[in-house]
Amino acid sequence: MINWKNMDTLAAYQELQNVEPVNLVEAMSGENGAERVRNYSVTMGEGLAFNYGARPVDDKILAALAKLADEAQLTEKYAALYNGEMINTGEKRLVLHQLTRGQLGEPVIADGVDKREFYVNEQKKIAEFANKVHSGEITNAAGEKFTTVVQIGIGGSDLGPRAIYLALENWAKVNDTLKMKAEFISNVDPDDAAGVLSKIDVAHSLFVLVSKSGTTLETLTNESFVKNALENAGLNPANHMIAVTSETSPLAKNEGYMTAFFMDDYIGGRYSSSSGVGGAVLSLAFGPEVFAQFLDGAAEADILAKNPDIKQNAAMLDALIGVYERNVLGYPSTAVLPYSQALSRFPAHLQQLDMESNGKSVNRFGEPVDYVTGPVIFGEPGTNGQHSFYQLLHQGSDIIPLQFMGFRNSQMGTDVVIEGSTSQQKLCANVAAQIVAFACGKEDENRNKYFAGGRPSSIIIGDKLTPKAMGAILAHFENKVMYQGFVWNLNSFDQEGVQLGKVLAKKVLAHDTDGALKVYSELLNI
Amino acid sequence: MINWKNMDTLAAYQELQNVEPVNLVEAMSGENGAERVRNYSVTMGEGLAFNYGARPVDDKILAALAKLADEAQLTEKYAALYNGEMINTGEKRLVLHQLTRGQLGEPVIADGVDKREFYVNEQKKIAEFANKVHSGEITNAAGEKFTTVVQIGIGGSDLGPRAIYLALENWAKVNDTLKMKAEFISNVDPDDAAGVLSKIDVAHSLFVLVSKSGTTLETLTNESFVKNALENAGLNPANHMIAVTSETSPLAKNEGYMTAFFMDDYIGGRYSSSSGVGGAVLSLAFGPEVFAQFLDGAAEADILAKNPDIKQNAAMLDALIGVYERNVLGYPSTAVLPYSQALSRFPAHLQQLDMESNGKSVNRFGEPVDYVTGPVIFGEPGTNGQHSFYQLLHQGSDIIPLQFMGFRNSQMGTDVVIEGSTSQQKLCANVAAQIVAFACGKEDENRNKYFAGGRPSSIIIGDKLTPKAMGAILAHFENKVMYQGFVWNLNSFDQEGVQLGKVLAKKVLAHDTDGALKVYSELLNI
Repeated sequence: MINWKNMDTLAAYQELQNVEPVNLVEAMSGENGAERVRNYSVTMGEGLAFNYGARPVDDKILAALAKLADEAQLTEKYAALYNGEMINTGEKRLVLHQLTRGQLGEPVIADGVDKREFYVNEQKKIAEFANKVHSGEITNAAGEKFTTVVQIGIGGSDLGPRAIYLALENWAKVNDTLKMKAEFISNVDPDDAAGVLSKIDVAHSLFVLVSKSGTTLETLTNESFVKNALENAGLNPANHMIAVTSETSPLAKNEGYMTAFFMDDYIGGRYSSSSGVGGAVLSLAFGPEVFAQFLDGAAEADILAKNPDIKQNAAMLDALIGVYERNVLGYPSTAVLPYSQALSRFPAHLQQLDMESNGKSVNRFGEPVDYVTGPVIFGEPGTNGQHSFYQLLHQGSDIIPLQFMGFRNSQMGTDVVIEGSTSQQKLCANVAAQIVAFACGKEDENRNKYFAGGRPSSIIIGDKLTPKAMGAILAHFENKVMYQGFVWNLNSFDQEGVQLGKVLAKKVLAHDTDGALKVYSELLNI
Repeated sequence: MINWKNMDTLAAYQELQNVEPVNLVEAMSGENGAERVRNYSVTMGEGLAFNYGARPVDDKILAALAKLADEAQLTEKYAALYNGEMINTGEKRLVLHQLTRGQLGEPVIADGVDKREFYVNEQKKIAEFANKVHSGEITNAAGEKFTTVVQIGIGGSDLGPRAIYLALENWAKVNDTLKMKAEFISNVDPDDAAGVLSKIDVAHSLFVLVSKSGTTLETLTNESFVKNALENAGLNPANHMIAVTSETSPLAKNEGYMTAFFMDDYIGGRYSSSSGVGGAVLSLAFGPEVFAQFLDGAAEADILAKNPDIKQNAAMLDALIGVYERNVLGYPSTAVLPYSQALSRFPAHLQQLDMESNGKSVNRFGEPVDYVTGPVIFGEPGTNGQHSFYQLLHQGSDIIPLQFMGFRNSQMGTDVVIEGSTSQQKLCANVAAQIVAFACGKEDENRNKYFAGGRPSSIIIGDKLTPKAMGAILAHFENKVMYQGFVWNLNSFDQEGVQLGKVLAKKVLAHDTDGALKVYSELLNI
């Protein structure tokens, strides 16, 4: 029997607040620090490990967090989710994104079908289509191969697939599996579509229109933009477009598209990278085998996230430590810092995933909660960030927990030795150095050169950023966000906060405004 | 006589804390709200206006902020800066980036030269060089024109120039002034350089090595990387590289470069976009006339920032309201939200500019301060952000002040009418709607659909994102950050917080580690 209770009603949360906090500077110094780093590590599969040596916990706090995990019934709630209970209470929907990559529990039958079968079958159709495009069986009207795939979508239909494409583009180049170059059009700003169209060859481009409802204004607008461009080039848009949508949307069974692949209401936009939303564009770009590897990595992480022992469950542990940092220690934001240029847009995806899921002030029953919830998430790749905002992270007035990522090997393998080390070694040396600098600080009589330390971080360490590793990392954060939502007793799967702006924007376009809104509309010449 | 005093010692700051806060929901509703939006606007030059109708101020608070500006001697401190006093106390340096675009006060003579003349002369040399590249007077060894310019730099040598290049790339395309495509290599991650090199034609590429000291490890490493690639292509690197550096650096008068352009220690990296750091790459990409327009826009904003009347000085007003939000209202972060895809990387530049300048815990004399300083800065373009992290901004547990930007016209002019409006109108309608949604909120019996409102924002409204407008916007934020530093009594021009990580990274590479650092090094196979 699952109880959905607010965090502040749980005895374990009260206990947690009374455990003595860790002095991170002391804990991370000397042999004690070395011992922590050796011990505080969890495997994430795929050669990845989550190391939390520099997070502000010790065995007492971990014991309190384990109690919290038990009392909040975290793994039971996860099981309820993957077994098909209606976890998205606001929208009265199941939450099934994990099913796109594996069967974690019982078969989930909804709308009269086995949902795992449905998702697998859609991905199979996508794979067949992609293979035909790559082999030249499906071509443009002139019988020439498509060379570019352009995703048209916004939010979850853009950020995740784009981040993953960028993460694997160079890997695919050196592994000879970059089948098509991918581009992305997302913003309703006409310069976004015009800019992308100005640099591609539309005659050899395949456009993937992604909208679950088939009614997303930005996406339909950009579709018209693209159709105009195709028509102006003397091409028939129906020969250049496919759709990823729900079976009931106006885009399904529509002659305007070569074909359509389906998703459903049980996969939220920000959780849709492993569905057809990511599947179509990434299978076309890299080949379906590469996308399958990505799904395998995610599936493995999903299984690890079932473990009720927090010391064996990286996602749950990351979630719980994050709650401790947010609610007990009072840190309002978290930085995501991948030491990998390939992950340049992954922080932007996590920003959506986390902030849209848990940026809520009411619990899953719509009742206000009396504690803070999701933090601000931001980040850029290292070492770039070191030459930018790290100043504030080291010496600013607020403490900001950090989520590092680092890989022992580069993707492309080309490197150069300068001053006795490769670039990859320098990259890794920097992330190691930063963790310790943040945690331990440095005494200095000159207060301007003094570092207080005590700034917590964890790191995901991997061998190389491969498709499998990317899948595992993505699933780690999805599961982390899910677990934090469970602890905070939120519905992490709706987004009512985006509605009001849409309603008012429609009023502006209908010139149905007064007061401040009317004046702003006039100032902007609408 | 200028007094440098901590903010909490100022009578005006004590007064400010006692002024009744604004109820933004009430203030922004009805005709009162319309009146605020009409009145609370300041020109920024170049057809730009800073509208602060939805910031949490009223005439009483503005009066208190004006007193604070006077007591903190803000415009006097600005005058001291542009007249050449040693404002960067930590590094004992003048702060002269404004001089690259205009003479705001007396001639500044340093190191025996008139500094305005020095900067103007360097830009003139850059312009001549760029014109020769464009005309084909300067070519590769085969006598062919260069088509691509690649900036090699990190931090301030990367983020600002890259953001501005992206901001103006499409504008330049439609105005027929995109002379060369620009690329950027920044990260020590070898996949960054390898990735860029895999997509350019090195034989027709000109590389701009940017490092003031000539010793930045990332930049020199990437230079070697590029030199290897040139040599592997049978090319002489000296025919493909120029340097932007200080006159005393090892890169100056060095046969490895076609030529070198100079900057000096009086221009910090994050303030260097209007110096040769931005000047070389942007003049090569767009032509020197376009870069000159950008400088003109910045110069105009610098002059407006001299006005002691806060209601006529957008940069100072923005700064003071930001301090009020941070220190009196206690908001820990600020989001930058340009409704312009062209400004996609401008938030990353502001993140550096702001967080590296004011993320400090000691005052300009190296004494700890007892108040919070620079906030976390993050952001993405709208409408993309609306489909991502806006959920938290609207309904999350923390209030986050917002800095919007919007333009009445697109850059490229291509547009499409859907449902009776253009994409540009939809874009503008959305930003207008968001401001009011954040400020006023919405009642709803269903608490999940309830918006508390009271979430403050301002907007910079312009006609079009032109080079001049870009210059004015950049200078606005530079001057805002400078003024906040003055109020907080910080040295906004050094960055001691980046040193410790560098020192420890060197130890890792020298295998001179113990404790936690040694274990992390082992885990990362260094």
